[in-house]
Amino acid sequence: MKVAILGMGSVGKGLMQVISERDLGLVVTAVADSRSAIMDRDGISIDEVLEAKRLRGYCGDTSLSAMDVVTKGTYDVLVEVTPTNALTGEPGLSHILAALDRGRHVVTSNKGPIAREYERLRRCAAEKGVLLRYEATVGGAIPIIHTLEQGLAGNRVLAIFGVLNGTCNYILCRMAAEGLSYEQALLEAREMGYAEADPTYDVKGIDPAIKLVILANTFWKKPVQLEDVEVTGIDMLTNDALRLAEEQDCTIRLIAEAIPDRGILRVAPRLLPLSHPLVVDGTLNAITIETDMAGEITLIGKGAGSVETASAIIGDLLYIRDFHEGRHKKTP
Amino acid sequence: MKVAILGMGSVGKGLMQVISERDLGLVVTAVADSRSAIMDRDGISIDEVLEAKRLRGYCGDTSLSAMDVVTKGTYDVLVEVTPTNALTGEPGLSHILAALDRGRHVVTSNKGPIAREYERLRRCAAEKGVLLRYEATVGGAIPIIHTLEQGLAGNRVLAIFGVLNGTCNYILCRMAAEGLSYEQALLEAREMGYAEADPTYDVKGIDPAIKLVILANTFWKKPVQLEDVEVTGIDMLTNDALRLAEEQDCTIRLIAEAIPDRGILRVAPRLLPLSHPLVVDGTLNAITIETDMAGEITLIGKGAGSVETASAIIGDLLYIRDFHEGRHKKTP
Repeated sequence: MKVAILGMGSVGKGLMQVISERDLGLVVTAVADSRSAIMDRDGISIDEVLEAKRLRGYCGDTSLSAMDVVTKGTYDVLVEVTPTNALTGEPGLSHILAALDRGRHVVTSNKGPIAREYERLRRCAAEKGVLLRYEATVGGAIPIIHTLEQGLAGNRVLAIFGVLNGTCNYILCRMAAEGLSYEQALLEAREMGYAEADPTYDVKGIDPAIKLVILANTFWKKPVQLEDVEVTGIDMLTNDALRLAEEQDCTIRLIAEAIPDRGILRVAPRLLPLSHPLVVDGTLNAITIETDMAGEITLIGKGAGSVETASAIIGDLLYIRDFHEGRHKKTP
Repeated sequence: MKVAILGMGSVGKGLMQVISERDLGLVVTAVADSRSAIMDRDGISIDEVLEAKRLRGYCGDTSLSAMDVVTKGTYDVLVEVTPTNALTGEPGLSHILAALDRGRHVVTSNKGPIAREYERLRRCAAEKGVLLRYEATVGGAIPIIHTLEQGLAGNRVLAIFGVLNGTCNYILCRMAAEGLSYEQALLEAREMGYAEADPTYDVKGIDPAIKLVILANTFWKKPVQLEDVEVTGIDMLTNDALRLAEEQDCTIRLIAEAIPDRGILRVAPRLLPLSHPLVVDGTLNAITIETDMAGEITLIGKGAGSVETASAIIGDLLYIRDFHEGRHKKTP
């Protein structure tokens, strides 16, 4: 199966390395970064492309763009991992739409396009008979979309509750464990590389709200938007609140919740018993899916990281490969 | 897709109900219980069959057997949920082999055949180009096999650790929480319906060992057998041991572990910190998968129950349906 990769950040490079090292039946036929692209219908040399990127800062021919790859490249699946704005969805959105329009499968780790235009993208993929997979957009390495769509297939999802932002979880853990103020814990999170210079997107709850929209659209019949989510961040939380929680054997976590029957779509700090499965440590993510047959299923794992994201993308690529090749036989 | 169901216990009946209530694209063309069977290539009336079973204790024609359904029935997938011996694997094993031999897909909740003869069954399915799915054999409603095979596809599984027996977990929880002796907690588990009259199979660790063999065979290259598992049960545990654990903010759980690189295949009581994700309450099951790319992924959910088992079987049936029909498009 031929794969074109847009984006040569840590995820794109990590993905190329995994594809070159493992015998997964995947051939990379095109790669693009922000300045150049390289295409070869018979497969490019991943080593050479990575080396070129390392030496001169771009991967291929500077007269070619990512959109050239999308519209002219030879590939079965487009992997869209460009640095894309999580709110506008660009440039990822345009790439994905153009690839689907050409009847190509798409795998992406970009939240923006999926959160903003899920319904449009889903329809477009369905019309063309191709797959759009986005496991890497939510919960890092946790195969939450696989679980919702395949593992729990046939179940009705009654609710989802999740810790979807590792930065906030880390800050809350440190406030509770060491009695730090929000400002002190944020500073520490920055020093550890868990929080960005401008932490607004995380601490105001926008990032988990975007992920919640993606999850809700995956199982909720009515399409939802970021504007539908009621969002409260953790930036107004005082250490007093955490101390009070502790007195009741509880703690506070930033919980994203989607409950279709009650129309609830919310991100807010919530009081949870210390023994609750969503009370996870550090930058971990955790998601509980409440269903009618399987009951409550909780998944816990690393919510971020380039290798973890590559893992989620590989899972999507192999899922598409199995359908693409009708390969439902295990090798004897 | 046409489905034949062998076994009309709570799982078989629950499954039939779900299939009749939901529009899953599944038609039941044959059903067998221990005394009779009924077949109709155009689909049987599930309501009538359930009613017949309720009124007279068997479902169909007493001159027909389960094996008649397997060898003469019209079906794409055989669902094998007969009361089958978990150690010998019969009668399920013979049914499954005969169905695979006819080139039919098989879904089963029976641990015995999969634990005893996985390699043989896998080869047989591969030769015939059909699927053998057994999600319901391990972890109840937790989609652990889906996660290993699809969700984490492309990952190398380095180790699996799991709480795979709800009865033992319940007993250990009660011993720790109430200071009960093993005997007192076992008695309580019996009263709650969590332990059988003869609890040997659970408390000696045989049940989790069988499940560990199934998990190991799913991801481990070398086929393994029940005899390869080093098993210690919980029946010799004293309350003193739990008290000592508690003094270190730990507790004791019966952990099944498979670590291919170190050749470890073991079920034994283990000391775990109270905050460890595998420290789950009551009859819950929990499984941690350690992988090279996705890191550690933990799944928690109900480990038993007829609806939960039906959920796992439905997940397998829909997986097969999607391949069977090449249906990889979401409806527009």
